[in-house]
Amino acid sequence: MKKLVTAASALLALMLALPAAAQFAKPEDAIKYRKASFTVMGAHFGRVGAMAAGRVPYDAKAAAENADIAAAMSKLPWAAFPEGSDKGETRAKPEIWKDSAKFKEAADKMQAELTKVAAAAKTGNADALKTAFGPAAATCKGCHDNFRKD
Amino acid sequence: MKKLVTAASALLALMLALPAAAQFAKPEDAIKYRKASFTVMGAHFGRVGAMAAGRVPYDAKAAAENADIAAAMSKLPWAAFPEGSDKGETRAKPEIWKDSAKFKEAADKMQAELTKVAAAAKTGNADALKTAFGPAAATCKGCHDNFRKD
Repeated sequence: MKKLVTAASALLALMLALPAAAQFAKPEDAIKYRKASFTVMGAHFGRVGAMAAGRVPYDAKAAAENADIAAAMSKLPWAAFPEGSDKGETRAKPEIWKDSAKFKEAADKMQAELTKVAAAAKTGNADALKTAFGPAAATCKGCHDNFRKD
Repeated sequence: MKKLVTAASALLALMLALPAAAQFAKPEDAIKYRKASFTVMGAHFGRVGAMAAGRVPYDAKAAAENADIAAAMSKLPWAAFPEGSDKGETRAKPEIWKDSAKFKEAADKMQAELTKVAAAAKTGNADALKTAFGPAAATCKGCHDNFRKD
């Protein structure tokens, strides 16, 4: 278990280093990529949420696995918001680029909260998971409200 | 560097354990998820390929990061091919379910080759990367030819 925590932490560090390496040939490639990474993240985060909300039985192993993947995925989308990718098949609001410091703050907050959920999931304690889940879900909603069109 | 290899290996092990935990409420959710995971994988694998082919300058760090993420992502799509997800917005051929052993073999082969690419990328040797990339790319094409509609 400790090994997995170390592994996840190292992976998070690796992914944090990613933006510098990220490149998209066309704005639509960036849009497709960021939507895809949110989709994968959301699927795993949603499974954690289903357990946190008691909609499905709590399964410590599944919670930890899904929370780890959600946390790792949460590092990926941010390199895919280059200037000029505000048009096309996207609901991204102009505020992402107009107020990029606020957007980055929201992105960082979300990643931090998902890391906390992953840590809580590893405790094997359902109540710890429930406690961590709410603030994390709130960061999703907050960012959608401010930076995503309806 | 050794730490990162350990981290990636542990993550791969974690993701290998995932299918049991994977669930999709509706076939279209599975379809969306698997396409999204292939999109993210492909973006990172494509960056490795651009270096392997000499289309962009070789950057050992970027190669290792992108190859690691591609290898980790390669574990994800396979849990998202439940029976009944052959219809809708998908190019999946019926052979995926009719000849599931062959499909699994192709999926396993692809994951194994991407793991080799990640290991080759970590050597920091551009020639090692080139050597590993070809067979990995061939597994993409092989699976598309056999299991994906044009």
